[in-house]
Amino acid sequence: MRLRHKPWAKEEMEKYPSIVIQNPQEHKNKWNNIFNNDQPLFVEVGTGKGQFLTGMGEQHPNINFIGIEKYDSVLISAMERVRDTEQPNVKFLNEDVENLLDFFEEGEIDRLFINFTDPWPKNRHAKRRLTHENFLSLYKHVLKPEGEIHFKTDNQGLFEYSLHSMSTYGMAFKDVSLDLHKSSVEGNVMTEYEEKFSKKGMRIYRLEAHFNNN
Amino acid sequence: MRLRHKPWAKEEMEKYPSIVIQNPQEHKNKWNNIFNNDQPLFVEVGTGKGQFLTGMGEQHPNINFIGIEKYDSVLISAMERVRDTEQPNVKFLNEDVENLLDFFEEGEIDRLFINFTDPWPKNRHAKRRLTHENFLSLYKHVLKPEGEIHFKTDNQGLFEYSLHSMSTYGMAFKDVSLDLHKSSVEGNVMTEYEEKFSKKGMRIYRLEAHFNNN
Repeated sequence: MRLRHKPWAKEEMEKYPSIVIQNPQEHKNKWNNIFNNDQPLFVEVGTGKGQFLTGMGEQHPNINFIGIEKYDSVLISAMERVRDTEQPNVKFLNEDVENLLDFFEEGEIDRLFINFTDPWPKNRHAKRRLTHENFLSLYKHVLKPEGEIHFKTDNQGLFEYSLHSMSTYGMAFKDVSLDLHKSSVEGNVMTEYEEKFSKKGMRIYRLEAHFNNN
Repeated sequence: MRLRHKPWAKEEMEKYPSIVIQNPQEHKNKWNNIFNNDQPLFVEVGTGKGQFLTGMGEQHPNINFIGIEKYDSVLISAMERVRDTEQPNVKFLNEDVENLLDFFEEGEIDRLFINFTDPWPKNRHAKRRLTHENFLSLYKHVLKPEGEIHFKTDNQGLFEYSLHSMSTYGMAFKDVSLDLHKSSVEGNVMTEYEEKFSKKGMRIYRLEAHFNNN
């Protein structure tokens, strides 16, 4: 993602602490209190400008959503969306996914989304890919045992790598689509990237995976 | 594959019992005797007209190859190729893959190839796909523990299904290519189908998998 420096973004988000949650480690194992209900919790890592998560929040009012994004210059757009639409079931953390275990208790998350994250194509950067085994071990910890990871990307190399890394970690794929927009998937909510790339006729790859084999 | 009925094929192949091995169950656990050496054994299921296997045999004289094909009307072409080129390291079985355990002992095979097999696109025919779990359990039995399955196809649906079925069976993917002919894979030997489809610009999907996770 091209990042425009927005020095005011962090300060602006701090004005809406009910949308961009401050000190998230304090809410570990009690996110239900933040949402004031006992709905399932779905989390997106690398949520960008939040188009996917706010779309999902609208489509599924009976589910709570948290988006994690470390770049305040993009998360500010996500915050503005939720502020304007007043969606009660969508919150954000301006944090690094690396610290996931600080924010969520074991088995606290019902489903995890990874959408169009940075492919880090160079081998020496493999550890930064959000489907690297180091991240998978974090996801496994915070997901319920039957919890699923839903992953989509336009990047062929990242998808190939992820098929390797997830299966090697013992994950099983429930559903795979190698050309999402020519498949019969219902209720697909598009990210900003997905809209742009699929319009150009590029393939979108998608899978659903779980850790059941471990 | 479109099959032309060739009533003479079976009889013709019986004339070359050193190429199309008769009564293969008698050679279970002693295929080395047939090849007169102790080279590794690579097996292709659904070998068709044998272009892949004879190409591999030429490229790898230090490996023994057996191709299994139930339709004599196509296997006859494979037999003729080997007869004409006098390749000592390529043999065929005119048999059904379902009976694999009758022909090979536990751990007797070093590598298994599945190339461009019938996709059986209807759900009610899923059990006929050569990557259905029923077949995977046969492969697991006859493959060495560290043995690999190399699978390629032009059929997107079959590849998606296989990613699901193999990972659910606990297999790990070592290498995945979602567009083989645009990847940097060395030594790829093409099948008849692969030549035809890749010329048309269609994608070829390929993966290497093993059972190590089980």
